[in-house]
Amino acid sequence: MGSFPLNTTLKPPYYIVAFYSQKKSDDHDYDQVAQQMEALVKHQDGYLGHVGFRDENNFGITISYWRDLDSIKNWKGVGEHLSAQQKGKSVFYADYRVEVAKVERAYNK
Amino acid sequence: MGSFPLNTTLKPPYYIVAFYSQKKSDDHDYDQVAQQMEALVKHQDGYLGHVGFRDENNFGITISYWRDLDSIKNWKGVGEHLSAQQKGKSVFYADYRVEVAKVERAYNK
Repeated sequence: MGSFPLNTTLKPPYYIVAFYSQKKSDDHDYDQVAQQMEALVKHQDGYLGHVGFRDENNFGITISYWRDLDSIKNWKGVGEHLSAQQKGKSVFYADYRVEVAKVERAYNK
Repeated sequence: MGSFPLNTTLKPPYYIVAFYSQKKSDDHDYDQVAQQMEALVKHQDGYLGHVGFRDENNFGITISYWRDLDSIKNWKGVGEHLSAQQKGKSVFYADYRVEVAKVERAYNK
C-alpha cells in the first residue's frame, strides 16, 4: 500500500491495470512472491508506479500505472512474472479479474 | 467495500472513475454524506457499480464503473452530488485525485 496516486503529476494519456483478487486464506509463499514481483517491476521499462489494498476478507485491488500498452505486454511476458502469474492462478487466488484502461483525464484537488 | 468487480461480466468498452483520497481524521458528517451518495448513484443512468477501500491511515480508493463519458458527466452535475463534491473539497479531504479511464480489455480467472 502507498499513497502514490496522490503525489503523482502524471498527465494523460497513460494506462492503468486494475487487478482485483480474492486470495485464498492458506496462501503459502504469497508474501514472498509478491515482494519479489514488487522489486522486479520497478526496473520494468514504462512502469510508473502502483498502489494496492487488501481487506480483512482477503479481497484486494492493485492498480499499476504504465506508459503504454507495450510496457504492460512486456511486463506480462517477463519470465519470473509468468511463473508468479501461474502460481497466482493455480495456488494463491480463488478468483481474480483484470482490467486494462487508458486514462483520458486526471486531476487533483 | 464490496467484491463487485469479481462478479461482473461487463465487457469493454466501458469507463472507470478512480477516486483516490486522503480523508481528514476529523470527518464531520462524512459517513452520512457518503451513504446518501451511495443511495443516489444507484439510480443514475449508466452507473454500473463501484468498489471502495479505505485504510487505517484514512487513505482510500473508490472505483466506479460507467457505461460512457456522458453518464459520468451527468452524475458529476447532479445537485446533491455537486454539494457533496464541494463539501469533499472544503471539509472532508486533505487531498484527492481523480482519473477517468476507458477500459479496453478485461478478463477473469
